[in-house]
Amino acid sequence: MNQNYTRYTELLRKVADIQNAAALLNWDQETYMPPKGAAFRAQQLSTLAGIAHELATSKELGDLLEALSNDKTLSDREQKNIQKSLKSFKDNKKYTTEFVQELSRTISETFQAWQSAKEKNDFSIYAPHLEKLVALKRKECEVLGYKAHPYDALLDQYEPDSKTADLEVLFADVRSQLVAFVKQIAAKPQNDDAFMYLKYDDQKQWDLGLEYLKQMGYDFEAGRQDRSSHPFTTNFSCQDVRVTTRVNENDLNEMLWSTIHEGGHALYEQGLPASEYGLPLGEYISFGIHESQSRMWENNVARSLGYWKGNFGRMQRTFSEQLKGKTAEDFYKAMNIVQPSLIRTSADELTYHFHVLIRFEIEKALIENKIQVKDLPSYWNAKYKEYLGIDVPSDSKGVLQDIHWSHGSFGYFPTYSLGSFYAAQFFAQAKKENPELEKQIESGNMKPLLEWLREKVHKHGKYYTAEELCIAITGEKLNFQYFMDYAKKKYSELYNL
Amino acid sequence: MNQNYTRYTELLRKVADIQNAAALLNWDQETYMPPKGAAFRAQQLSTLAGIAHELATSKELGDLLEALSNDKTLSDREQKNIQKSLKSFKDNKKYTTEFVQELSRTISETFQAWQSAKEKNDFSIYAPHLEKLVALKRKECEVLGYKAHPYDALLDQYEPDSKTADLEVLFADVRSQLVAFVKQIAAKPQNDDAFMYLKYDDQKQWDLGLEYLKQMGYDFEAGRQDRSSHPFTTNFSCQDVRVTTRVNENDLNEMLWSTIHEGGHALYEQGLPASEYGLPLGEYISFGIHESQSRMWENNVARSLGYWKGNFGRMQRTFSEQLKGKTAEDFYKAMNIVQPSLIRTSADELTYHFHVLIRFEIEKALIENKIQVKDLPSYWNAKYKEYLGIDVPSDSKGVLQDIHWSHGSFGYFPTYSLGSFYAAQFFAQAKKENPELEKQIESGNMKPLLEWLREKVHKHGKYYTAEELCIAITGEKLNFQYFMDYAKKKYSELYNL
Repeated sequence: MNQNYTRYTELLRKVADIQNAAALLNWDQETYMPPKGAAFRAQQLSTLAGIAHELATSKELGDLLEALSNDKTLSDREQKNIQKSLKSFKDNKKYTTEFVQELSRTISETFQAWQSAKEKNDFSIYAPHLEKLVALKRKECEVLGYKAHPYDALLDQYEPDSKTADLEVLFADVRSQLVAFVKQIAAKPQNDDAFMYLKYDDQKQWDLGLEYLKQMGYDFEAGRQDRSSHPFTTNFSCQDVRVTTRVNENDLNEMLWSTIHEGGHALYEQGLPASEYGLPLGEYISFGIHESQSRMWENNVARSLGYWKGNFGRMQRTFSEQLKGKTAEDFYKAMNIVQPSLIRTSADELTYHFHVLIRFEIEKALIENKIQVKDLPSYWNAKYKEYLGIDVPSDSKGVLQDIHWSHGSFGYFPTYSLGSFYAAQFFAQAKKENPELEKQIESGNMKPLLEWLREKVHKHGKYYTAEELCIAITGEKLNFQYFMDYAKKKYSELYNL
Repeated sequence: MNQNYTRYTELLRKVADIQNAAALLNWDQETYMPPKGAAFRAQQLSTLAGIAHELATSKELGDLLEALSNDKTLSDREQKNIQKSLKSFKDNKKYTTEFVQELSRTISETFQAWQSAKEKNDFSIYAPHLEKLVALKRKECEVLGYKAHPYDALLDQYEPDSKTADLEVLFADVRSQLVAFVKQIAAKPQNDDAFMYLKYDDQKQWDLGLEYLKQMGYDFEAGRQDRSSHPFTTNFSCQDVRVTTRVNENDLNEMLWSTIHEGGHALYEQGLPASEYGLPLGEYISFGIHESQSRMWENNVARSLGYWKGNFGRMQRTFSEQLKGKTAEDFYKAMNIVQPSLIRTSADELTYHFHVLIRFEIEKALIENKIQVKDLPSYWNAKYKEYLGIDVPSDSKGVLQDIHWSHGSFGYFPTYSLGSFYAAQFFAQAKKENPELEKQIESGNMKPLLEWLREKVHKHGKYYTAEELCIAITGEKLNFQYFMDYAKKKYSELYNL
């Protein structure tokens, strides 16, 4: 084997080992760490991050990447690794230590201010810090560089190669088509979901969640489920991919969608090739593609009538009193209530995208310096009135609801919508290639779908960009119409449109 | 503050952060890691160990330590830190990379061979690997250097400054006094402990264990208890000190002594000063002193009649059927059965030391090159006959029972006995200084004892050597008579001698 390439893999795997150790420290922090452990844990994480950054920007690695990027003896896959690694390396090198430290300090302060502001429902606590952070983010766009729009530089961190201009087209469709469709639904009588909020025993919910994960094909030999207040998926290799969930005894939805959503993320990570550990081809493509996997299992699979034709019997036997007299159809209707609401994370799968749209418009305007942080609450509330038709009663339930901005994560939100739209397009293709797919799901046989995803998405790692992958799978770029078709068919039936 | 000293603390804390991250990876491996996670976990641990070693032997640190060791402006405590750090640094520097790698490789192979040998009861699988490892250990003695005896160099890794010659004197006492005393006990009728092996519900045992930890003063805000097949204590700072235990539904002893033993270790770590994180004064003195804390709580406190006068009522209410008609005295007798046995880890607190003595004699002879690995089984069996009067039915239950040698841990075993002997001496002193101590324990008030340990042992970190600490607390060096007095008083009553 090429000596340079071998050394390159050694260096990248060393970085991955440190980052995966840090990921375990984070997992532990969210699941089992006793409260007093927090202070030293923060310090340990910062040390690991510093060492990983040092190694990831070392001269040795830079020189190797330069040499290897001109090495024509490398295989196609090796060249892909080098090309993607070189891009990350160059991006990392653009940051000065001072900038990284200032950003990190500002994020810490802004995060704390946000926590306090949210708790006290007082945006003014947060505003000066966010102001500073937004200014740094504008600076970051210049540091990283961009062609058409500064926001492109931020998007690129979550959704490599995606462009503001393309998202504007996409969200214009959301605005023109989805808003109108949701208005049609709103004019119809609402379905009943009151029984979803009866008392559902915690342990029984937990056990059912494990069954759903197993049914999806989640490998418990290479992962586990724990509890945390905010569900997440993390991994320390493709052989150890962990999910967390939360159980609310008074809302069956929480466990169900958390568990299945995170399960979808986890299947992607478990399907990445172990042989490419630490290298780009061993990693997911983008946040949007990651989200396509979680959304597909959550929405296209588990919020379908077929899924519950197969699974409702077991659910009803487990909760015989709460679900007495209900049918799979009733259950299906109850989990698919469309209703404009205040909080993004508990929104239905249609109005969800209005929440994202609003954040996208605000982020873009902030980065373009067209609006000021101090005006965010009124701007936010006006948008919620415009797109969702609702009044925001407090900033805590409005502009302060999400953690993202306080972490400096600008450019993240759009990937949530991208994920749903990719999911719809991929799922349509899966059905086209396998006409039995929905019947298989109905019979509880998820294996063909998982194998299809393994083959089409998971096993490639970062070989393709998101756009290339989409074309490779479906023959065309991301096309919002797949989502609209899915939504129209499903919800026209559900609401007798 | 002294700039050099500040930089020195930064460097040491960076090393500590990495080592503590590795400790979490190890904890997770023993508690929650899914089976397939093992391979990449091993690699991640090896990467972290490599980075920690690099930093701990860096030229910058060496230069700083040299400069600081001649800096008269440092405080007494600062000087202690520098002095202990310099010793570790010099010891670390003695190893060549080649030697470290060869040792690490040999240990991996030997450990695997041991597992297989133990499972198959076939010493010959293990012998050639152990042979090689012992040769490396002999070489390590030369690398590290010693004055009187090569084994001193190995002892020093677990019990700094202890000497083979002193241990020989100590174990001569064990041989002459304890062997004779155990023979006296063996001549007496045995007490009844059959009821300890009835069925005791797992969850109820677990809950009781948590109560005992709480009663001891273990801080659950700065730690937690989990399950593992081999109980252990680990920590990632003094603010996050975790214990594990195991529960056997058919043997009440396992949970009891595991929980309280590890609790004793954990109290030591929780009592170390947070301000000295990563520095010698923030660390325990030696394995022997660590063990003195676990043994004191396990034996001197929790295997006493007073402890159970206080705690038996609750135990009996929890297991009313199993303990029907039993008294605190019956329970006390049952947990203090003296009976020569094959397995060190389940031995009573007297014959336990014969197990250690045998290992000490064998290790010494191996390092002195007086016996050969191939002769170990017969040597082992002869010693068990001599000191314990029992026949060893198989190597799995004999020379293959312990993990230590397969890990290259030679010089570790003696610290188990040192721990018990220090515990007896410290506990005698605690009683002398506080005549109410036993009454307090009987009433469930462990606070005065814990405060005494905090003040006398925990808060000092590595300020004293083990011998200095012993003198500072009790006015004399380690003296075996304290243990013999404790043993004679307790067991003469228990066995009507």
